[in-house]
Amino acid sequence: MRVIVIGAGMFGASVAYQLARNGVAVTIIDHAHPGKATMAGAGIVCPWATRIEDPSWYEMYAAGGRFYDELIGGLNGAGETELGYRKVGALVTATDPDQFKEAGERIARRVATAPEAGDVRLLSAEQARAKFPVLREGLEAYFIPGGARVDARLLSAAMVRAAVALGAEFRTDYAALEFEGGRVRCRDGAGQIVPGDEIVVAGGAWASQILEPLGIAHPVKPQKGQIIHLRLAGVATANWPVLLPMTSHYMLTFDDSRVVVGATREDDSGFDYRVTAAGQAEVLAAGMDIAPGLVNAEIIETRIGFRPAGPSVKPIFGRVPGVEGLSVGNGLGAGGISIGPYAGKLLADIVQGKPTELPVSAYAPQRA
Amino acid sequence: MRVIVIGAGMFGASVAYQLARNGVAVTIIDHAHPGKATMAGAGIVCPWATRIEDPSWYEMYAAGGRFYDELIGGLNGAGETELGYRKVGALVTATDPDQFKEAGERIARRVATAPEAGDVRLLSAEQARAKFPVLREGLEAYFIPGGARVDARLLSAAMVRAAVALGAEFRTDYAALEFEGGRVRCRDGAGQIVPGDEIVVAGGAWASQILEPLGIAHPVKPQKGQIIHLRLAGVATANWPVLLPMTSHYMLTFDDSRVVVGATREDDSGFDYRVTAAGQAEVLAAGMDIAPGLVNAEIIETRIGFRPAGPSVKPIFGRVPGVEGLSVGNGLGAGGISIGPYAGKLLADIVQGKPTELPVSAYAPQRA
Amino acid sequence: MRVIVIGAGMFGASVAYQLARNGVAVTIIDHAHPGKATMAGAGIVCPWATRIEDPSWYEMYAAGGRFYDELIGGLNGAGETELGYRKVGALVTATDPDQFKEAGERIARRVATAPEAGDVRLLSAEQARAKFPVLREGLEAYFIPGGARVDARLLSAAMVRAAVALGAEFRTDYAALEFEGGRVRCRDGAGQIVPGDEIVVAGGAWASQILEPLGIAHPVKPQKGQIIHLRLAGVATANWPVLLPMTSHYMLTFDDSRVVVGATREDDSGFDYRVTAAGQAEVLAAGMDIAPGLVNAEIIETRIGFRPAGPSVKPIFGRVPGVEGLSVGNGLGAGGISIGPYAGKLLADIVQGKPTELPVSAYAPQRA
Amino acid sequence: MRVIVIGAGMFGASVAYQLARNGVAVTIIDHAHPGKATMAGAGIVCPWATRIEDPSWYEMYAAGGRFYDELIGGLNGAGETELGYRKVGALVTATDPDQFKEAGERIARRVATAPEAGDVRLLSAEQARAKFPVLREGLEAYFIPGGARVDARLLSAAMVRAAVALGAEFRTDYAALEFEGGRVRCRDGAGQIVPGDEIVVAGGAWASQILEPLGIAHPVKPQKGQIIHLRLAGVATANWPVLLPMTSHYMLTFDDSRVVVGATREDDSGFDYRVTAAGQAEVLAAGMDIAPGLVNAEIIETRIGFRPAGPSVKPIFGRVPGVEGLSVGNGLGAGGISIGPYAGKLLADIVQGKPTELPVSAYAPQRA
Repeated sequence: MRVIVIGAGMFGASVAYQLARNGVAVTIIDHAHPGKATMAGAGIVCPWATRIEDPSWYEMYAAGGRFYDELIGGLNGAGETELGYRKVGALVTATDPDQFKEAGERIARRVATAPEAGDVRLLSAEQARAKFPVLREGLEAYFIPGGARVDARLLSAAMVRAAVALGAEFRTDYAALEFEGGRVRCRDGAGQIVPGDEIVVAGGAWASQILEPLGIAHPVKPQKGQIIHLRLAGVATANWPVLLPMTSHYMLTFDDSRVVVGATREDDSGFDYRVTAAGQAEVLAAGMDIAPGLVNAEIIETRIGFRPAGPSVKPIFGRVPGVEGLSVGNGLGAGGISIGPYAGKLLADIVQGKPTELPVSAYAPQRA
Repeated sequence: MRVIVIGAGMFGASVAYQLARNGVAVTIIDHAHPGKATMAGAGIVCPWATRIEDPSWYEMYAAGGRFYDELIGGLNGAGETELGYRKVGALVTATDPDQFKEAGERIARRVATAPEAGDVRLLSAEQARAKFPVLREGLEAYFIPGGARVDARLLSAAMVRAAVALGAEFRTDYAALEFEGGRVRCRDGAGQIVPGDEIVVAGGAWASQILEPLGIAHPVKPQKGQIIHLRLAGVATANWPVLLPMTSHYMLTFDDSRVVVGATREDDSGFDYRVTAAGQAEVLAAGMDIAPGLVNAEIIETRIGFRPAGPSVKPIFGRVPGVEGLSVGNGLGAGGISIGPYAGKLLADIVQGKPTELPVSAYAPQRA
Repeated sequence: MRVIVIGAGMFGASVAYQLARNGVAVTIIDHAHPGKATMAGAGIVCPWATRIEDPSWYEMYAAGGRFYDELIGGLNGAGETELGYRKVGALVTATDPDQFKEAGERIARRVATAPEAGDVRLLSAEQARAKFPVLREGLEAYFIPGGARVDARLLSAAMVRAAVALGAEFRTDYAALEFEGGRVRCRDGAGQIVPGDEIVVAGGAWASQILEPLGIAHPVKPQKGQIIHLRLAGVATANWPVLLPMTSHYMLTFDDSRVVVGATREDDSGFDYRVTAAGQAEVLAAGMDIAPGLVNAEIIETRIGFRPAGPSVKPIFGRVPGVEGLSVGNGLGAGGISIGPYAGKLLADIVQGKPTELPVSAYAPQRA
Repeated sequence: MRVIVIGAGMFGASVAYQLARNGVAVTIIDHAHPGKATMAGAGIVCPWATRIEDPSWYEMYAAGGRFYDELIGGLNGAGETELGYRKVGALVTATDPDQFKEAGERIARRVATAPEAGDVRLLSAEQARAKFPVLREGLEAYFIPGGARVDARLLSAAMVRAAVALGAEFRTDYAALEFEGGRVRCRDGAGQIVPGDEIVVAGGAWASQILEPLGIAHPVKPQKGQIIHLRLAGVATANWPVLLPMTSHYMLTFDDSRVVVGATREDDSGFDYRVTAAGQAEVLAAGMDIAPGLVNAEIIETRIGFRPAGPSVKPIFGRVPGVEGLSVGNGLGAGGISIGPYAGKLLADIVQGKPTELPVSAYAPQRA
């Protein structure tokens, strides 16, 4: 059996890697869309702080978070070193006292059954600034040791490389699907048939257009995010925790004196690759508000990503009913970083006909 | 009537502009693909030198060349100033004497009936180097005054602006087609219906994937081109002629001391956006061979474009048989710059139900 | 006689061009500093609106503005086409009514003796928005037909090319000065002596460091400017007037649907090449405030320039007293675009020992 | 005592870090020149293969190589993680059999007294390709386990961060020196005096211009290098050894599927920041010749660096005779990566008046 995985974002890279680990032959085709959410995605693994309360959606978050240790361990064992992952802890704060109190209760309730979160502590404003020196003065914060940051671009590339090292094939190209005698077939950008027995569509925000030729209505829409990378030259940011101020914005750092401030959530912009005046101004203002120490930071770049979202964002993954040999994995929205690797593992199990760790029927795709 | 034009490359921009000039309401949707051929396209209008001998294909080239004066005049009249077009003349040469002789005969035969080519002259090697100072020594050349250069990126943007000034709407987004009750309907990237009565697909190398959901097999494939921009700082290149050395490579200049060397023709690479070691080396070698004076030039950038080509490249344009309200314009390959504006004019006439200047039935799209 | 001109910004390029026009042999050496003010400079020629009231400083502004017609005519005559200059008119407005009234009086007083400004008109808010469609509603404006925009990068490159076409030599390199037997000598970055009889230092913000080895204290300091380029895709901006809202910010457009919003004035930042969070936020806010129609514009780039300024910014140009063969031209600050070409003309006259149109002794450099 | 270190390349960053570790107050000023050799430098630590035979020059190489373990250990201990360093081993080969034999003898002789080189082995062509899969077929190679690669940009930034964490101050600015009452004084780009008792000039290729105002003739000249970064998408390159084909070119990889091919050595180009047609073609040809598997690799970027070199390149470091409070560290040429950190340590010792591990008088700067 050979499986064609379309899309090498977090979801697709994970599916490919997990299949390859199980000895399955894999062909990965990725279009290298400039706005691929994974390529823009600098993110946070900290399920315990999320304001999402839907139980099964939260269960995915929690399991996705737990799965990271196993994933990172496996990739390290395979010789991969550039994973873009570090468990630096998360700092949860809020400028509104009620929100802060709520966040504290939510976290306490959840970490009670999540030992991987570590010992959560309430930090004074001074303690919080000691951990995140550009933070606004006067803000208490909860510190969750198990929180981690992820550079999705590096992590997905590492999963692809690990898959390739296990025999998978990787191509940068467009993939088109068509029906041929009742089965789905894949052609590449030059029109040649790509050999394969099973096809997994993990095309993120572009999945709808990949599935459309098959007459499959796929509800995922692009949600545009603009995310700004700043440099604090000379400042050792490698071990700063991720910062969750309980707004739609957030902050995290990378080793090279880099601070990332995210992100807009633009639902009606379609595939608009532009960095906009208002988007840039919004993210800069949010960043300087919660972290005034960024005022003199250097703007390195603004990344654009299209999260695969929809009216009510929830994961979609599984076999497409009524279409032999076709599976889909998508719809993680802003949760792609937390959940992607784990959801990819579940989908790889489904494709191989194995039982899954969690019940997955709630996420099954519809046939239109 | 409102016409939706998908694609704002040379073909689509021309269709939209010509429709708008005729008072037709137009919505232009362009995906801003980074590898759009038009965006990479620095090109040459010089039909009389082409080695293409197929009579109807050549007739399109010749008519496309003739049309430029009218196009430029109209855009200038509309207040557009940044057209990227200048009639600097063409220098045709060859390192192989037989090829050079053949080229001379071909040109003489053609310009006999093409007064717009001007008085063609045979230049000595010294005269040729006076016009194109970095040229290899010892090469005679034909000078064709009517030859011109085009920056396709600027010219298509000018046609779009002129269309917008006439009331057209312009959007940067993905467009998806579907059948609904026997008619074709267009949705944008956010899934909203784009209102319109007629749809023109001018998606270039991406047209196949736009048409695929309708079950229409479209034979156009991407032909990748890598094209290098060099700077000769301080050198006044604005009036250098375009250079046609009778290979698949060519050279032209822009006003800002820029020399453009084109281009690879890669037929089997699909949509591969990468500048490659071999592609870069090929174009640099070809450039330095014919123009050793470029050795110390600065490399500014390499652009990637996907020409809409196919097994036997010929234009395809007209109404799609059996599908009401759907037209296609595509397949110009490396001729997109010479022919694009004119072919767009013809297709605009077809969409409006007007007679066309040339017979166009030979170019009609097939229904699969 | 051969003159070495160090620096190819507005001032140096003009000196070199004017010398070359007079048959003087010229060697231009430019270090291509990334933050050269000229390279970032998108500017405005509209002396009549400036709030500068110092009579001799204003006289330079006015003469600088008048000189543009002659300059542009000369370059066009020399075959230069890419000048980055257009007389689109200037729109002067203010959100504060008193400021607006003052501006009107200032303009009226000045244009009375400046026919080149054209017929100044007071526009209603609607008329103003018709000329500059993204402008805030409700703002009256004065329209000054003689106002022009300049892309300093293109204009200085054109002057260099015109000089080269007249025989000047152009090199991208560092130039170092030293005393040798009582005369000043110039070495290039490889340590070789650059032959020349006269040396003109037009190094802008870097002039102090060029002159320092000679023991000459030069008061010019860098004033950092961050300037943002936005795109309004599909919008024909080629003929929008420049916008002067009587703050330190301003706006102008280019032909390719580009709107430029300038600029910070940072006096104590030294040579700090970074785009900063606060600088970017300041300019975006200023732009969206006066022109809310920019909210959805695309950010293309932010340019950094170091204006050659100082405690009390005034032009400095002339022979350095006591040092044979050494001249300096500098200190134009934010006026480099308005005054640069004209001041370069004056300095070229000085170097040639010709009388100057205006008295220039007030601008003579000191010996330290 | 406060020491001002001018330049944050390999040499300066090391001086600053070593001083800060010893409790000395440090101010680092770096001009962020785009062509700083360190910023372009992707390099190799493998002293045992170098063709340099001058004993004291080789001694520096060898000591510089040995020092890396201590350096990396110290930075790791300080919490620095992004060091750009990995001991992946070196593959020494040659297309000329005599050269290969010579290289083998040279290595054998040197590693005899260098246990840190590890057990050198002769590999068959197949074994060599197993370690470096894009290598040309048929080439035997020596494998030296102790060879390492360095991303000088990351390593110098890590040393700066470690210095800052120990209290050093870091500024991006231009620094100018002048005499004042017999002592040297430093001013920043805004003309303000930078407080400090000792000044270390580690300005690399720019040091001559920093020292010139003091009348100090410094023999270092820029040697331009053009270095190309290629991507082999999906390929796990993290553990490939560095490749030394005994030409002036070399190859090394980074974790993100990146292969770096270096570099031109251009001695007479001065400070010319341009990527040139000939330079790019030379490096691509050299790379594809020794490693044909790069033919289809993606060109990511070309970096330009100016190595601080000179007629007979040798390190220069120590106190400047006759000028109190002034030291210089420079002249490492292409050896900056191997020697820089160690030479910085030696210079830090000198500045503190400590004895040095090696005799250093041979490297002392002259007073002109």
